[in-house]
Amino acid sequence: MARERAKASFDVEAMTHFFAGGREKHECMQKAFRIVQRDPELTVQEGNFFDLTRDEHREFTMRQIKRAVELRNSLNDPQLSEAIFRALVLYSESFGMRMYVHELLFKSAINLFGDDEQKQAWQEDIAKCRVLGCFAMTELGHSSALRGLETTATYDQDRDEFVIDSPSLLATKWWIGMAGHTATHCVAICQTIVKDKNHGINWFIVPLRDPKTGRNAPGVVAGDIGAKAGRAGLDNGWIQFNHVRIPRKNMLSKWISLDPKTAVFTPAPNPAIMYGTLIPERLSISEGTHLIVGQALTIATRYGVVRQQGSNDEHIMDYQTHYVKLMPSISALYVVRVVGWILDAHWQQMSHFAQNDQAKYLARLADMHSVAAGVKATVTWFGSEILERCRRACGGHAYSAYNAIPGLIGDWGVTTTGAGDNIVLLQQTGRYLLNAVKDVYAGAKTQEGSVAYFNDAQDILARSTCPFQDARDWAHLDAIIDVLRWGVINKLAGIAQALGAGETYNNYQLQTTLVAELHTYAHMFSLFNDAVKGNSILEIPEPLCATFKQTGVLYGLEILVTHLATFLEEGYLNGDQAKAIRTMHLEQCRVLRDQAIPLVDVWAFPDFILKAPIGRADGDIYPAYMNTLRSAPGCFGPPAYYEQLVRPLVDPDMNGKSKL
Amino acid sequence: MARERAKASFDVEAMTHFFAGGREKHECMQKAFRIVQRDPELTVQEGNFFDLTRDEHREFTMRQIKRAVELRNSLNDPQLSEAIFRALVLYSESFGMRMYVHELLFKSAINLFGDDEQKQAWQEDIAKCRVLGCFAMTELGHSSALRGLETTATYDQDRDEFVIDSPSLLATKWWIGMAGHTATHCVAICQTIVKDKNHGINWFIVPLRDPKTGRNAPGVVAGDIGAKAGRAGLDNGWIQFNHVRIPRKNMLSKWISLDPKTAVFTPAPNPAIMYGTLIPERLSISEGTHLIVGQALTIATRYGVVRQQGSNDEHIMDYQTHYVKLMPSISALYVVRVVGWILDAHWQQMSHFAQNDQAKYLARLADMHSVAAGVKATVTWFGSEILERCRRACGGHAYSAYNAIPGLIGDWGVTTTGAGDNIVLLQQTGRYLLNAVKDVYAGAKTQEGSVAYFNDAQDILARSTCPFQDARDWAHLDAIIDVLRWGVINKLAGIAQALGAGETYNNYQLQTTLVAELHTYAHMFSLFNDAVKGNSILEIPEPLCATFKQTGVLYGLEILVTHLATFLEEGYLNGDQAKAIRTMHLEQCRVLRDQAIPLVDVWAFPDFILKAPIGRADGDIYPAYMNTLRSAPGCFGPPAYYEQLVRPLVDPDMNGKSKL
Repeated sequence: MARERAKASFDVEAMTHFFAGGREKHECMQKAFRIVQRDPELTVQEGNFFDLTRDEHREFTMRQIKRAVELRNSLNDPQLSEAIFRALVLYSESFGMRMYVHELLFKSAINLFGDDEQKQAWQEDIAKCRVLGCFAMTELGHSSALRGLETTATYDQDRDEFVIDSPSLLATKWWIGMAGHTATHCVAICQTIVKDKNHGINWFIVPLRDPKTGRNAPGVVAGDIGAKAGRAGLDNGWIQFNHVRIPRKNMLSKWISLDPKTAVFTPAPNPAIMYGTLIPERLSISEGTHLIVGQALTIATRYGVVRQQGSNDEHIMDYQTHYVKLMPSISALYVVRVVGWILDAHWQQMSHFAQNDQAKYLARLADMHSVAAGVKATVTWFGSEILERCRRACGGHAYSAYNAIPGLIGDWGVTTTGAGDNIVLLQQTGRYLLNAVKDVYAGAKTQEGSVAYFNDAQDILARSTCPFQDARDWAHLDAIIDVLRWGVINKLAGIAQALGAGETYNNYQLQTTLVAELHTYAHMFSLFNDAVKGNSILEIPEPLCATFKQTGVLYGLEILVTHLATFLEEGYLNGDQAKAIRTMHLEQCRVLRDQAIPLVDVWAFPDFILKAPIGRADGDIYPAYMNTLRSAPGCFGPPAYYEQLVRPLVDPDMNGKSKL
Repeated sequence: MARERAKASFDVEAMTHFFAGGREKHECMQKAFRIVQRDPELTVQEGNFFDLTRDEHREFTMRQIKRAVELRNSLNDPQLSEAIFRALVLYSESFGMRMYVHELLFKSAINLFGDDEQKQAWQEDIAKCRVLGCFAMTELGHSSALRGLETTATYDQDRDEFVIDSPSLLATKWWIGMAGHTATHCVAICQTIVKDKNHGINWFIVPLRDPKTGRNAPGVVAGDIGAKAGRAGLDNGWIQFNHVRIPRKNMLSKWISLDPKTAVFTPAPNPAIMYGTLIPERLSISEGTHLIVGQALTIATRYGVVRQQGSNDEHIMDYQTHYVKLMPSISALYVVRVVGWILDAHWQQMSHFAQNDQAKYLARLADMHSVAAGVKATVTWFGSEILERCRRACGGHAYSAYNAIPGLIGDWGVTTTGAGDNIVLLQQTGRYLLNAVKDVYAGAKTQEGSVAYFNDAQDILARSTCPFQDARDWAHLDAIIDVLRWGVINKLAGIAQALGAGETYNNYQLQTTLVAELHTYAHMFSLFNDAVKGNSILEIPEPLCATFKQTGVLYGLEILVTHLATFLEEGYLNGDQAKAIRTMHLEQCRVLRDQAIPLVDVWAFPDFILKAPIGRADGDIYPAYMNTLRSAPGCFGPPAYYEQLVRPLVDPDMNGKSKL
């Protein structure tokens, strides 16, 4: 391990600080880790985290929340408190999701859709967890198509109240995080019925439980969703509303209004506003990827340089088949993290406009929505791919729950279907792109944001072959972005033509999905490329740029290699160019192989966060792994059932065996 | 669902019987299902299978075994007993693996490597489960490279015994199924030391536990492996040997011998013989795929035709993005099952030769080993891909453990790394192919078996472009096999040339892996094609051949589409051909879409086997799903921890909130 660390070609400390958000934040994080690691209410001290049952895991997670809130209230040190929360998010995805539901989904819905009075009324209770909020959007029978949601909020003008109802079994709110046992309130998205007219979906704050007893509030039937693939510490739940009455002021009213005297409902200036809260949810996936997938990659990478296998006891990381899977994965996480920061900054700007310059906010909303949808989909799919690579890279040892990877995979799975199914999201992005390119062809509109390059559509299409002939060209993101953009414009032109000729959209779904992926990658690489060149809202310290550039190029080549056939069959790339791309891909993998350990070290996950003996920072993996097993409950038999279920079969005195 | 079933274009009953192995077996299976479903010792009657804890799951699985063995002993109906065991394998992968370890790995090791006396001595005890056997091959630090295994069996001539030792921590036997708590014996693979000389690896029967108490036998330290990604009912374990003495006759001696008077060791005629037991293990994956992946596909397919989503309430199975993922997956399982039966028949022939014509057995061993390795690797990888497709095809509802797919994924994962890591297996196949093609070029040997087409290598390579110009050509497996074979020979020629020019093998690992995959697919499609044409050891009833042909073509096109770039960049296919292949792929998906339900119905998994409410045969999924949740333990709160951990935060009387 020391040998691997000595190979670092970049300033590991500087990179570590960059990922942490600065030296000061890094040191604060280290302090938080020390606090968290020693606190028996925050981390499992006796036994193994991965032996917790569902009930134990849910109780433990709630204990973490209570303790962390108490610490936050008593420490009076916001930076350290935030670091403690962050450490706990790293330690347990279930903790992270409970807090995320409360602090991101519930709170930001109120902030985005609530008027000033509403924000004021809820702000402090949310901050101090005096209410625990959840986000009731998905229904049993409806998820991706919000317009189809069935839950109703019917205005009762006489009492100036709304009445919330679940009109059918399929209208049951489903998967709602924290609704199972603990949330006291939800924001529920409902069809808004005023004077028998449906004014479409809006957001309502609905109490779920009596805070004194934890029992369901009158008219609410809510229960726990039970056993899941992961996140056992999170009480996902389901909710049915039966004439639940709430005051009118619980309808979030920043963009809409309802006059209690006339019962006249004034809708939002743009129905897309309702989707605003989904953007930060989807953008947050960049950080989530870093947290979950980054841990798995750290474990698999460390195992790869320790494990020896083969006729010459090779370290398995030195096999081509091994580093060619892991190095592009590590590179992807560098790109995803940088792009995530940039998009977060863009969203911050937009949130500012939402308060102060609504026209600007609305003008940018569609593009931001398209970007967030595309990034969420492509990144979570690639994240699944990386996790599977990590699993396979650890051989059988990733089958042990104690090596953390099964749990990370279980926690991750939901990201590809939750917060918008990836296929549906890419369809949304694809349709946006299709409309944008049609506008350009019609001379209707100059495109901005992620589709600014569409303005050059004619020029791009005019090139029928790729101009990059030199093998070294592929060591630059510019060339990679060029190919991807050509693919987007070329495919969109083909789809537009086919649809214009009367073909049905359904027969082009695969193509629009592909276009949305290629465009999203082109956009991500473009944002990343600008940042590496010092031309971005995010500043990368100059000494680190060379390493970032390497990771960007390798991830770009990985995507290009994956989609080579698309460009070959259209003739944009020829066989020689394809081979040059593959050659450069392998070369970049080989070059970065030596940086494997430094590249994951800088993410600075302590061993107690990773929890995986085979991922230990010091590389002394086998004794720790053995000790983990020896101290697990029930390691040493005989099991309780031996006497009753095994002995009758195998004991010669009981099984009728001839004792000759 | 009735509408979907009415679309069947083939004789569903005939196909059902074919998959079951005939009408009689199908009816026997139905009888077994009825017995199993009602027996409280064989299936979970109260509560939910997916709520079992690890301890409960292991006990439950052992209870199934004891009960099934009792039934077998008392029924005196071998066919029905076998059907009951099969039903239990379908019901629980943990049951399947425990019996598999005992009846396939342990028993077949004794049958393949034991002499007549040894087989005789153990046969009845194994059949009646009077011993419970396991298979101790893998070690903590060594798996894929058997030659590197460390456990030793040292001959003590004075006492005519072997002494078994684990010389290091890394020598600990690891992952051994049933070694955790229940196996009374293992066959252990050990380095055979006689008179200080290592004669390589051989198989030894070693007692592990006192059958009366279940405690470890003297010198044995064995324990349970603990929490895993899946198969919670299987007690995987680890074993350390410390001077464990066994009689010489516990060394399996069909192919080897040791003279106790002279201590002269006579090795096997061919060291490859030692790997013989791995072949049936790897071939069994075809059936395993059908059992596990087939269940997930049945669930996802039924959900797909019930679930409605979108602006016109479309059934999601009608979306192009949906059926294009599921139909090739279903097709793949048709191909894999047929190929599995054919390869099983080949292995039966070989097992016969092993007893009666050892020269013939040895002559075919290398090719069979290569085929088994390739099939195991490609099929398990594609199986993982199908499971992931199924998971995503069910949206969030596959995140519920109660819909079975998470458990199936957890159970499956190990297949890609266990029983030989897929990468290592494909390397073995790749090296075999490389040697075979070198032999052909050197004019050294006429190739047989899977590589018979290598004899035409010169002719194949002479064609630099693919001759199939007509779009309809791609509706035939012949064309698909042609392209794959060209790819194999072309790539092998390139690798051989590079290695001949002094390139290192490691830089061509990715290519040898790819070649092994392409060759394996070519071989599988070739076996399948012959069977559909009535030219195989396996007879497919003529009326079913058209449907089988459709599935073969679609799976073939799926593989071709996946690897298009390989053929485009070498110029064997041009852009028009590539597009024709894609068009035919989509067309075949569309054509088979209507057969989705009939195609999975014929696998005949009853609802109680599938356990997933969203996969119900009658399509009435939502009330069943809701009821599953309502009856799960702890569905309705408040949870035990509410008073202590939630109330202090949210109760206004306790959280310091101003009560103005």
